[in-house]
Amino acid sequence: MKALVYKSPGKKALEQRPKPTLQAPDDAIVRILKTTICGTDLHILRGDVPTCAPGRILGHEGVGVIEEVGVAVTSLRVGDRVLISCISSCGKCDYCRQGMFSHCATGGWILGNTIDGTQAEYVRTPHAETSLYPLPEGVDEEAMVMLSDVLPTGFECGVLNGKVSPGSTLAIVGAGPIGLAALLTAQLYSPAQIIVIDIDDGRLEVARQFGATRVLNSAREDIAAVVLSLTEKKGVDTAVEAVGVPATYTLCEKIIGPGGIIANVGVHGQAVELHLERLWSQNISITTRLVDTVSTPMLLKTVRSGKIDPIRLITHRFDLDNILEAYDTFEKAIDTGALKVIISP
Amino acid sequence: MKALVYKSPGKKALEQRPKPTLQAPDDAIVRILKTTICGTDLHILRGDVPTCAPGRILGHEGVGVIEEVGVAVTSLRVGDRVLISCISSCGKCDYCRQGMFSHCATGGWILGNTIDGTQAEYVRTPHAETSLYPLPEGVDEEAMVMLSDVLPTGFECGVLNGKVSPGSTLAIVGAGPIGLAALLTAQLYSPAQIIVIDIDDGRLEVARQFGATRVLNSAREDIAAVVLSLTEKKGVDTAVEAVGVPATYTLCEKIIGPGGIIANVGVHGQAVELHLERLWSQNISITTRLVDTVSTPMLLKTVRSGKIDPIRLITHRFDLDNILEAYDTFEKAIDTGALKVIISP
Amino acid sequence: MKALVYKSPGKKALEQRPKPTLQAPDDAIVRILKTTICGTDLHILRGDVPTCAPGRILGHEGVGVIEEVGVAVTSLRVGDRVLISCISSCGKCDYCRQGMFSHCATGGWILGNTIDGTQAEYVRTPHAETSLYPLPEGVDEEAMVMLSDVLPTGFECGVLNGKVSPGSTLAIVGAGPIGLAALLTAQLYSPAQIIVIDIDDGRLEVARQFGATRVLNSAREDIAAVVLSLTEKKGVDTAVEAVGVPATYTLCEKIIGPGGIIANVGVHGQAVELHLERLWSQNISITTRLVDTVSTPMLLKTVRSGKIDPIRLITHRFDLDNILEAYDTFEKAIDTGALKVIISP
Amino acid sequence: MKALVYKSPGKKALEQRPKPTLQAPDDAIVRILKTTICGTDLHILRGDVPTCAPGRILGHEGVGVIEEVGVAVTSLRVGDRVLISCISSCGKCDYCRQGMFSHCATGGWILGNTIDGTQAEYVRTPHAETSLYPLPEGVDEEAMVMLSDVLPTGFECGVLNGKVSPGSTLAIVGAGPIGLAALLTAQLYSPAQIIVIDIDDGRLEVARQFGATRVLNSAREDIAAVVLSLTEKKGVDTAVEAVGVPATYTLCEKIIGPGGIIANVGVHGQAVELHLERLWSQNISITTRLVDTVSTPMLLKTVRSGKIDPIRLITHRFDLDNILEAYDTFEKAIDTGALKVIISP
Repeated sequence: MKALVYKSPGKKALEQRPKPTLQAPDDAIVRILKTTICGTDLHILRGDVPTCAPGRILGHEGVGVIEEVGVAVTSLRVGDRVLISCISSCGKCDYCRQGMFSHCATGGWILGNTIDGTQAEYVRTPHAETSLYPLPEGVDEEAMVMLSDVLPTGFECGVLNGKVSPGSTLAIVGAGPIGLAALLTAQLYSPAQIIVIDIDDGRLEVARQFGATRVLNSAREDIAAVVLSLTEKKGVDTAVEAVGVPATYTLCEKIIGPGGIIANVGVHGQAVELHLERLWSQNISITTRLVDTVSTPMLLKTVRSGKIDPIRLITHRFDLDNILEAYDTFEKAIDTGALKVIISP
Repeated sequence: MKALVYKSPGKKALEQRPKPTLQAPDDAIVRILKTTICGTDLHILRGDVPTCAPGRILGHEGVGVIEEVGVAVTSLRVGDRVLISCISSCGKCDYCRQGMFSHCATGGWILGNTIDGTQAEYVRTPHAETSLYPLPEGVDEEAMVMLSDVLPTGFECGVLNGKVSPGSTLAIVGAGPIGLAALLTAQLYSPAQIIVIDIDDGRLEVARQFGATRVLNSAREDIAAVVLSLTEKKGVDTAVEAVGVPATYTLCEKIIGPGGIIANVGVHGQAVELHLERLWSQNISITTRLVDTVSTPMLLKTVRSGKIDPIRLITHRFDLDNILEAYDTFEKAIDTGALKVIISP
Repeated sequence: MKALVYKSPGKKALEQRPKPTLQAPDDAIVRILKTTICGTDLHILRGDVPTCAPGRILGHEGVGVIEEVGVAVTSLRVGDRVLISCISSCGKCDYCRQGMFSHCATGGWILGNTIDGTQAEYVRTPHAETSLYPLPEGVDEEAMVMLSDVLPTGFECGVLNGKVSPGSTLAIVGAGPIGLAALLTAQLYSPAQIIVIDIDDGRLEVARQFGATRVLNSAREDIAAVVLSLTEKKGVDTAVEAVGVPATYTLCEKIIGPGGIIANVGVHGQAVELHLERLWSQNISITTRLVDTVSTPMLLKTVRSGKIDPIRLITHRFDLDNILEAYDTFEKAIDTGALKVIISP
Repeated sequence: MKALVYKSPGKKALEQRPKPTLQAPDDAIVRILKTTICGTDLHILRGDVPTCAPGRILGHEGVGVIEEVGVAVTSLRVGDRVLISCISSCGKCDYCRQGMFSHCATGGWILGNTIDGTQAEYVRTPHAETSLYPLPEGVDEEAMVMLSDVLPTGFECGVLNGKVSPGSTLAIVGAGPIGLAALLTAQLYSPAQIIVIDIDDGRLEVARQFGATRVLNSAREDIAAVVLSLTEKKGVDTAVEAVGVPATYTLCEKIIGPGGIIANVGVHGQAVELHLERLWSQNISITTRLVDTVSTPMLLKTVRSGKIDPIRLITHRFDLDNILEAYDTFEKAIDTGALKVIISP
């Protein structure tokens, strides 16, 4: 089968690889219908993710059709259309039982990282019954790809951790795909204000169309001053950090109000300064999270009922044969306007 | 009346001052029966608290008898014995309505800070009905002084923010009065392990007597290694920072497990490093809080029912005339073994 | 001044009464701009509310302008436009401190019940600072009247108690003003399905326009069967009882799914059967509540930000001089299509 | 093997049966070390549980040693000592993923009900990895049998559903094994008062020894009056119904305070009256639950750390050969003083 393989830092290739086979009683083999590229894939390609060795097939998102299941799989059948979660969950270890699938003893983020992933014609998915979700009748397959990672990440790490609630004020720092996923899913809780901050006017315009009540360009505006003026001098209830660099984290500290929550979503490469000399008395929380995808069943229901439309995140479509071009488009997002790209084997 | 006055950085004096008088309809004048000294008073005396001007009567803790009430005060009577909360709460601003009394628009920590405090024969208490608590019949007055600040601080900032729960594992970094208050009140939730960490063996011995399941001297032991070995390599569910310096905060980061909470209680004078490059994926929270004293009614009930015995925190007793000696004893706590000192006018 | 007075069971009159005067330091006198009639007023007029004695001015809803304040009132000024909460809250008793204003030791539902109410030119409001809410700039006065009682009741007793959440399934039994208020405010949490049940097709049509995903006429349809078919045979997550008779409560028991909540909003006049022989193992909850109006500040924000539009509940408008006609229109709601009627002095 | 078999209403027998064999990849065969009898077993023997057909081996509690595992079982090994949960949980259906194992699509309460149970030398346990819990080193086997059903039932249905909290007031109606299990586990949350009510002085004396702060005999005392006098006229915060008849439920309604929770634990055979005409405005909740055993890992930790001592519930011990005598002793509990009886094959 064809597969996109991480060769070495800076190098990737579309290669022929053997079709995967069942290895454990709770495995499934899934034929990929649609997959996509994540910012994390770019991190791997830069050599920044040591757990991912050269030779690995990338990709941890997608929808597909079940081709084969292990002997212990009873609730999924060959031919079922399924959503592939970016997080594999055994359903039985301590962490899974607590809903923290990201830290599953034999799962977590393994697809396209420590085992072969979804940017291929087929993928082997461990712990199939607790890591795949049957697609409801009539839902759009491309929309469902957004539920593998980007929507639950924005929702769980940003919206749920940030305790967005009716009437609350929310700032999202970073209007990339993850920030926009937080923006879309935050609206499930009807906050009064959603302020989106970025340095790219194009992305800010998308944010405005997606429901931001105010967009701010941090290259031009004094964000802290504007946010205070928008919030009766209090600061926001929730600040979602969706970039992953010290400057954006620091901005969150500046705009968070007493009693507020800084919900970190960004993948950080270095330490940041935590100003406890000012914040110790401010009753704030800072949260971190690797997406657990515990909210996937709920997000499926909200998509199905039309409460959110994930297709808005999709800007480009490619065949698997052109996946190198897809990577190129996704990497040059500021120029291409790419958010999420769909790849079809 | 006699009162302990902050004169200038490094200087304090026991002076004669006029007895306070009612200034607002919801004020009360309270005759002090017992008061105490807090670590924050020492901060003020070092000149570290800019909101507190020279000339201020110090003290934000105590019990007393109501001498006089304003016209709007209907639920308290002259002669009532009351607990004085360290936090004044108007009960009607946005923050008070949300239970965040520490940020009350016209209150918060003002006693012995921006208005005269309790280390005197009398004190004026603003917002009396929502800042004083009538003492139940038969409770010990000295025990009640511990409910002004130290117990609610350890409980709210450490135990509640840290979500201590039955069967959970808890580490408390710092065995001073606040850390010990967290230790006493944590036991209301029956955690399976309470590991207390300090550099002073005397304080660790107190912690052991107060219910620590394990005490560790960080001057001698590799804390991170021992904590991992005590927690099946996971780290603790809750780490309470009860010192307020970078090293102790950093220690909390090292021992916190996935899904855990670092509950900061310490008053910090400088920024710390937050290692988001490691923690972004660890599903942890870091919380800060100035005590709100929302838990005071509940703590009163637990003390009254014998679930906690705050008297264990009291090591020394002085007359108000000897308050300078009391300060000396409290300041040299490592040598004197002082935890909380009771001062009686 | 003119006022609508409850004379005796079955009798009411528009009479001249003296303008109210301040009685306590935390009182305010409010000149009424807009008021309305509640189903509870009809209960009083039938003689069903023993706490309300003949001679009482009715009404517990409205907006107005502050004419005078007691000496203890510092945060409200003469001339402020305010929302009058149906629940008076002292802000300082045990129940108020727990957010259960409905059980305030010296407040609760007293306006138009145990003290004179708002269907008049002026009203005295006790505990003014914790029972009145300044109107934000630019909000519609008539919309605000809906925040005195009907919206917080539907929201707190139905939506909050019922834990409506994104993707959940909700049934509302009864499409009167309270049921419709639950319907409007439930959408703040984006449930996947909102099934509204009534016996009047007119009200069901209104429910459909207000956002019901399905309406069912219980006079014609087998509700339990249809609800099961709409919910994969599980039953709903939340059933809001918004009528107050045994039959509608029983219907809620029939449609609630395992793990679900029956949130009672209706005012009941007799006991109902609770089928514990079937429900003991179904992990359900049944909740009751007299509105606390703790959510008023939050609802103000959602109305101001356009998330809900309470004006949709208003069907008729009258001058105070014509309040008897207003009562008539409201009482014959099935014929007149009345939901909420606005009365202007 | 020897097994206790339900023959027909009123009849049971100790018989020879074939040793069970693996039927599914996630099964385990467990050799029973200790088992016990539950009140539910008596219900079955009276013919009150239609799901349980004659010929069934009874018993849903016990500890044992794993003899054999299915091919999908990876985290349990032959020779492991395990606790057998009374609830079988697949870990992958919607209900299991929500922590509501009692309603597992292919599990729930099936042992000794719809499949053969634990009152035998061996038992087959479906969904082994999510229904068995390895015993920690050094814990007492008999203590662990109490964690199969009685302790999690008292804890989840009574204490957790009832939101027992530090300083709160709790009444437990019924001092049988389940009520006493609620009593033991409630103390994990340090309520200020635990009032236990029964008609048997012997059981009340046990309750007193187990930590009740007050015991009341409802055959002799006016319970409602006494409870009001003990709670400042408010009623209790939590009332646990641990009997299962209308009179005890009604008593809970009489003693519950505003804002309180009636947590039903009892297995009811008929409907009760719910006095909504009085309770609609009292902000109360009534909860029901079939134990989910989600708290088993946590209870294991609290037992291991010495926070609760389940052995106190064990009054008698028998060999499997004498199980008919064990049933007799358990059934005549008022005379024999039996709480839980241990049976050893």
